[in-house]
Formats: sequence, C-alpha cells, structure tokens
Amino acid sequence: MKLRFQKDAIVNGINIVMKAVPSKTTMTILECILIDASTSEIKLTGNDMELGIETRVEGDILEHGKIALDAKLFSEITRRLSSENASVTIESDDKFNTTIRCENSVFNIQGRDGEEFAYLPYIEKDKYICLSQFTLKEVIQQTIFSIAPNDSNKMMAGELFEVNENQLKVVSLDGHRISIRKVRLKDHYEDTKVIVPGKTLSEVSKILGGDNEKEVLIYFSTNHILFEFDNTMVVSRLIEGEYFRISQMLSSDYETRVSVNKKEFLDCIERATILIRENDKKPLIINIGDNSMELKLNSSFGSMNAELMIHKTGKDIMIGFNPKFLIDALRVIDGEDINIYMMNPKSPCFIKDEEESYIYLILPVNFNAATV
Amino acid sequence: MKLRFQKDAIVNGINIVMKAVPSKTTMTILECILIDASTSEIKLTGNDMELGIETRVEGDILEHGKIALDAKLFSEITRRLSSENASVTIESDDKFNTTIRCENSVFNIQGRDGEEFAYLPYIEKDKYICLSQFTLKEVIQQTIFSIAPNDSNKMMAGELFEVNENQLKVVSLDGHRISIRKVRLKDHYEDTKVIVPGKTLSEVSKILGGDNEKEVLIYFSTNHILFEFDNTMVVSRLIEGEYFRISQMLSSDYETRVSVNKKEFLDCIERATILIRENDKKPLIINIGDNSMELKLNSSFGSMNAELMIHKTGKDIMIGFNPKFLIDALRVIDGEDINIYMMNPKSPCFIKDEEESYIYLILPVNFNAATV
Repeated sequence: MKLRFQKDAIVNGINIVMKAVPSKTTMTILECILIDASTSEIKLTGNDMELGIETRVEGDILEHGKIALDAKLFSEITRRLSSENASVTIESDDKFNTTIRCENSVFNIQGRDGEEFAYLPYIEKDKYICLSQFTLKEVIQQTIFSIAPNDSNKMMAGELFEVNENQLKVVSLDGHRISIRKVRLKDHYEDTKVIVPGKTLSEVSKILGGDNEKEVLIYFSTNHILFEFDNTMVVSRLIEGEYFRISQMLSSDYETRVSVNKKEFLDCIERATILIRENDKKPLIINIGDNSMELKLNSSFGSMNAELMIHKTGKDIMIGFNPKFLIDALRVIDGEDINIYMMNPKSPCFIKDEEESYIYLILPVNFNAATV
Repeated sequence: MKLRFQKDAIVNGINIVMKAVPSKTTMTILECILIDASTSEIKLTGNDMELGIETRVEGDILEHGKIALDAKLFSEITRRLSSENASVTIESDDKFNTTIRCENSVFNIQGRDGEEFAYLPYIEKDKYICLSQFTLKEVIQQTIFSIAPNDSNKMMAGELFEVNENQLKVVSLDGHRISIRKVRLKDHYEDTKVIVPGKTLSEVSKILGGDNEKEVLIYFSTNHILFEFDNTMVVSRLIEGEYFRISQMLSSDYETRVSVNKKEFLDCIERATILIRENDKKPLIINIGDNSMELKLNSSFGSMNAELMIHKTGKDIMIGFNPKFLIDALRVIDGEDINIYMMNPKSPCFIKDEEESYIYLILPVNFNAATV
C-alpha cells in the first residue's frame, strides 16, 4: 500500500476516528486505526466494538492496500509533522512494515494486517431522520449531563431518542432529575423509540462541526444506530430494553411559579458552590417571597446569602436543591428569563418554557428548616 | 476592619501572593493570606517560610485592622464575584468573623487573628542590582529547566546569580548539563555571588509582567534575596554553600563546529521524541558529515531518520544525546541559526553564540555504534 495525503486531511481524519479507539482493551488490534485503500477511496476506521467510526480522507492512492497502525503513534507522528500543507506519504510492505515520510523525516513503525481489524456492522438504511448538525450537537449537550453512566440500571447510561411524526424527543434521567428536549423536524418520519449509549452521543457531539447548514442522517436498525454526516459514519450498538415511563412523572400542576433572570440566578448558585467541596452534600435553600427570592448555603467553610428579584405567582415556598442540578440545567437553557414551577418542598420542581420545548425536572432535597 | 476594593484589584493581588501560599503545611496559619490595613496602605501577604510575597492593593480603608483568611476560599470567592468592576467589601469583627459582600451576595467565613501570621524578614537594602522585568523573566526561563530540585546536592535546586561590575551571570546545572546566561546591566554594582532557590525564581518569573520599560530591584543580604517591582516584594531565603566551579568545565577547544537552522533542528528532535515514552532512555544519534547532519532514533515503537543541511568546519563526528536536553536548550535560544561545538563523542558539546551571552553545555550519551 502506498498513499499520499496533505497533513491537514490525515490529521483531521485521525482525530475523528480516534474517538472510537479504546484506551484499554484486551484485543490489541482495536488499539489500531485501520487504513483501507483497497477500493478507490481511502477510509480510516476506529472501533471499540460498541462504537465504530469510519471516515473518508482525501488523498492519492499510489498503490492499493490496507494496514492497521497503532492509533496513538500514528496520531502523534502525523500531528507533529511540520507545516500544515506538508505532504505525507504512508507506505507499507507485505510484512506490514510501514514508513511515514514527510519532508526531511522518515518514521518506520510496525503495522498489522488490516484483515485482522473488526469491520463496522452493516446497517439497513430504511428507517431514518434528518436534522442539522447544529441541532443534534445542541440537543446532546442540553441533555447528556443527566445520564448516570455507572448506575446498575444500564438504561440510565443512555438517552431516549423518540421520533413521533415530525418531532424528535430526547430524554435523559439519573434518578434525581429528568432532562427533556423536543426538536421539530422538517419532515414526518416513521415512529421510533431507541436508547442510545451516552458515550456514543458524547463522541458524536464532539465530532459534529455544529454547522446549521449541514445535515446529519440518523438511521435506526433493531440493534444499532448510524449517524452519517460529512465524510463520516458513526455506528453504535443500542441499549436494549424499554425506557422509563416518564409521562407519569410529569405534571403541569403547581402552587408556585417563579420567573427569574437566568444569568443572575446561575451566577449566584455557582458562587455558592465555592463553599462546597466534592462529595459534600449541602443543599442550596431557596426562600421565595413576594418579589424576591433568597438563596442560602451553609457549609463547614462558611455561609452565603443572596437575594434576587423575581416575579412570583402563587404561594410562598422554602425549598432545598442540590445546587449542581440547578447549575447543569441553567447552563444549557437559552434565553433571558426562566420559569420555575413548584408544588411543595417534597415534590419535583420543573424548569420549562411555555411550549415545553424543554423540561428539566429536578427533585428537591430535604433540609433541616430549624437550622436555616 | 472594613475595606472596599474593586474586584480586579483584589483578585490581582490575591493571585500574586497565592504563589507563596504552601499547598501543604503543618502550620495552618500559613494556608491563609494576611490582609493588613493597620496603616494607611492595604497589604496582602503570603508566606511559606522559604518564600514570602507581599503586595500593595488599591482600596478604601473604612476601618483599620488586619485579618488572616483561608487563601483558597478567599481567592475563589473574589474570583467568582460577578462583574469586573464590582466593588467588594470585606469586613471582620473582634472574633475574626469575616463578611465578604458584593452586589446581591454575602459570604460569611471564619478568619484568623492577623497577629498569628508570620511576617516577612527585614532585608537590608544596601547591596542591589537593577534590571528590566523583561530581562529577569527571560533569563529565568532560559536557565530554570536545568536545575535538579530533587537532587541530594541542594545547590542543584538553585541557580547561581553572580554580579560582576556591570554583568549578571545566571547559571544552573543538573549533573548532565549547564546553562549559562550573561546579562549586561546599565550600571556597575558591587560584586556578589548567591544561590537562589529555583522555586523562588520560577514564582518570580510567573508574577513578573515581562514589561521592558518596568524595572526590578534585586537586593542581596547574607541569607536572603529580595525582588522589588511594581507594588510587590518577594523575599526568599538563599541556598547556603559555595556553588560549583563551572569555569573548569568550560572549554573553547573543539574539533567540529556545526551551524544549523535552529527551528528545523528543534522540529526534528521534537518529532523523534514521539517514539519515546517517559523514562525510556533512547539516545538521539547525530551523524555529522560535510554538508549534512543525519538524525536517528530507534525505540521499541519504531525508528526515525531525518537529514538536515548544515555548515560544518572540522572533523566528521557521530555523537549521541538525550534529546530532551537538546530540546530544552534550543527552545530558549533566540535567532535563526545556532552553532554547536564538539570535541569527540565522549566530551561535552557546547551550544553558544560568539559573545558567549549564552552557553549551553550538554554531556553526550553512550550508544552502541554497531546498532546504528
């Protein structure tokens, strides 16, 4: 095999497929990136058996073939090659000895037989949706924080992707909170309901350019999901099982509704967390009166008090939260003001907009009212 | 005590003195920053007993006094306060309860008696030199990498500062290499020779703005050194003892002189180190011929070969180096081309300019010529 690339093209391709190369594995071949130039295209592949990424790279095929190269070494060598427009030549012989040549430097490394590499599964392309790269990237970032990757319930390690006519609903939950985002699609599609591993979504969101003009096609098969965009294909296993029935946890009743400036509220809570060290479970106590909201946090390091102006309808309430949960939700909500709906200090609180394009459910925490 | 600051001023002051706050100490009072407003100025102090930093901060003294506040907490609270121009009020009572107030937030933390804090030693100001902040910052960065902070010989943890008439010579060495920089001073000063702890120099170089127009005064006493610049004083103990006699290790004889483009040479060596993992001692072998220099590195990961154009006078030579030592020196040398002087594969090599404003001595390493 003999190939020639522009440095930029190969580095970019490697960065994409690296996201699927496992850092630890018992199958050492998976620590490699497959370079496949056996047809008229050059394709790079990384695969950790759960998640596989394949991307097409521009380059000249001087001699067809395929080779698997240690991902870390291959990535570092190409990244460190001098100028951005440098041309890089990769050549391997029958014994998989590989030479990477660029300007005045020549690297020799031992490659492995490309045939040993695990190919990506084939996915039927009949059931799909289409949305912009920007929207997909955004909807992942707006929900990914409330998965629970280490929970014994493996469904909490994933997100629900539910397609209903022209709407995609994405849901994640971790037992203390639920994040829901709804996206309007340009077309009507077949109804679908799958659970996508959080790791897959997090890697996809990193690769996506976030361009509003460019699209992603998402294909659903029984056991897999395929994301197709630009020159790249990301294939992942789905999580098996039936997702939690969240509709029964949602309620539109409330006793108190508060409208508050999002940035001020977020800044205040973030400041309060200065007094908390990791694993230190101190609640943020919110005391809601007529036109103002008082925030309090006490810890062994000291205390913080803050007051914010609000618009309130309904009853006064004093309620406690894990400040991290509020911060996570507030950080991903756009817009100047937010609405918070509360029933009582024991019932879930909802942060949502009127159209319910987003709903963040957060369970309150107990606090000792006597010490407040 | 009651003080009022602009957020920027107090944050900046804290950042400076934090450099002297120890992360681990048995004297918990040293984990604090002292705020002293007992006179007409507000001064912050951090002190780890080896190194002490005091800086003056602009602010209003509404009530005189002093207090010691936990450095980490104080730093985080002020940094997270909203806008850059926010005004911050710090108030403490007789029991050292301290309130930090800014906009809508109030923090209460427990301070400690400022009298418990360890003041900086008093330094006689008769022996000194003056140079620009830029030059001092630069000369530290150009030599600090070749100290050996963990060596049993404690002099290797410091740098020699030697003043001779209108010249400052700075020397560091670690048993494998020596770095020497000479700086011309604007005035003639009393001769001095002290060993300054590397940690002190490294913190000073971080605080220095690097402004060519602004000056630093360095005062020398028997056991201490004092750096005075802007609103800041850095006091450090000196390392006791007589520094190594380096003059006998320097030689101007050579058999081979090579002139090479610095950037090309550095790029090549940096690339070669891709094939080396930490603690993996593989030499870079340099084979010098008439107009070209061949670089080779072999490791368990593969091999690299590169060729560079050079100007050579004298004999051909094949010589091996720890690539890290070459990289460290080349990174801090300005200018397009460098000159390398070699005697034989066992003798130190010198990278220096004609005026010897810098000299980097590097010992070569043995290699098995048969495997090259």
